[in-house]
Amino acid sequence: MIPQIKNHRSVRSFSTKPIPQDAMNEMLTAATRASTVGTMQLYSIVVITDEQIRKQLAPLHFNQPMLQNAPAIVTFCADVNRFELWCKQRNADPHYHNFIWYVNAAIDTLLASQNFALEAENQGLGICYLGTTLYTADKIIETLNLPRGVVPITTIAVGYPQDSDAQNLSALTPRLPLEAVVHYDKYEDYSEKSIDELWATTEGSEQTQALIKENGLDNLAQIFTQRRYKREDNELFTEKYLDVLRAQGFMTK
Amino acid sequence: MIPQIKNHRSVRSFSTKPIPQDAMNEMLTAATRASTVGTMQLYSIVVITDEQIRKQLAPLHFNQPMLQNAPAIVTFCADVNRFELWCKQRNADPHYHNFIWYVNAAIDTLLASQNFALEAENQGLGICYLGTTLYTADKIIETLNLPRGVVPITTIAVGYPQDSDAQNLSALTPRLPLEAVVHYDKYEDYSEKSIDELWATTEGSEQTQALIKENGLDNLAQIFTQRRYKREDNELFTEKYLDVLRAQGFMTK
Repeated sequence: MIPQIKNHRSVRSFSTKPIPQDAMNEMLTAATRASTVGTMQLYSIVVITDEQIRKQLAPLHFNQPMLQNAPAIVTFCADVNRFELWCKQRNADPHYHNFIWYVNAAIDTLLASQNFALEAENQGLGICYLGTTLYTADKIIETLNLPRGVVPITTIAVGYPQDSDAQNLSALTPRLPLEAVVHYDKYEDYSEKSIDELWATTEGSEQTQALIKENGLDNLAQIFTQRRYKREDNELFTEKYLDVLRAQGFMTK
Repeated sequence: MIPQIKNHRSVRSFSTKPIPQDAMNEMLTAATRASTVGTMQLYSIVVITDEQIRKQLAPLHFNQPMLQNAPAIVTFCADVNRFELWCKQRNADPHYHNFIWYVNAAIDTLLASQNFALEAENQGLGICYLGTTLYTADKIIETLNLPRGVVPITTIAVGYPQDSDAQNLSALTPRLPLEAVVHYDKYEDYSEKSIDELWATTEGSEQTQALIKENGLDNLAQIFTQRRYKREDNELFTEKYLDVLRAQGFMTK
């Protein structure tokens, strides 16, 4: 297996060593080599190193420590703005301000971000994806001056791991058994028995038992639904993100 | 740069050689090593080799030749169904049937698909992404028996290249200059001059000139807006895909 895929771990603690521009250019170029719908490259990548802007972004990423200690924060945005500007300048009538092109552009953006992440690891750097990007997209848009037609999709914190030996020796994050996520020819829905079997290892681990105790709940599933990703947050973030798509022009016909 | 990233080319013509299960398992395992929100793995991967189902899928992918000649068609789906079944079986009350979790799950799905694609190339196989997945998602859902909470995001046709030497020697698909897609610290919107400069190489190529002549249009941008991705199609596919998200339960609060 490609070593960077096999050994991927999220890094959350970075050394102060800056990222050489050559390494950054390799990562950015790697991003652009990913497949893209119609070769349109419907994304923009904002590389943030400025101290002031990182301070503004920190609360938007829920003050996760990577915002302070990673030398670069890289925000990947779906972008139809650039393509539409080009079309308008060529007497062509573009119409990519709609939901299907939000999804097309988001696909382009995420294939590019994953290439960036793997190439970062190939350059000896570590990365962490910041899912918080979706929850505060409205404020990120303001902070980064994103025009209509541009929406942030994900963010990667990148830098040299604080302790790369410890990092390399840490356990990989567990995954469900392969059969949990793979179906052959058709989707076979899950029986009660198969759900129990697929989660057995995760639920039986010492780490899970400790988490349940610490949270004072009955099981791991309740930690997800009552602590990590709660109904009221999901509803709020859904409303906010749909507002962002409307404001950026992706929910018009 | 990671060789599979550097040398990626879409393959559209495959040999009849089947894919060994070991190689497929490496690709699928690679997919699961990608970062995933809260380790929730909100995706399902449907590997289709059955002749009958591939025949049903062919028109849904606009009868592109890969549907016939690739030994496997792999559909990557955003999936909250499995996670919700687990929660319900554990007396936890899940609420991931909403738009923000569609986007979270789509992110998980696409990071996994890109790992799959790169590992396929590492195994000596070639791949092609099928963007048509979005346009006929309703019919793909029927064909693959996808339950509520599951939506197809992308599809990869995979197999051994028909002529791997020719493939390896073919030119890489051109990209805009790096500065077209990269911004430092803040998004700097494009001036008329910068748009002209960024597209100059693409527009000046012999290939582009031939395309314009062939299409009887004024320029490349018009080929996109009048031939490839037309207003009426964008509007139709937007309506259809939003209907799919409603039917699969992602547009409720």
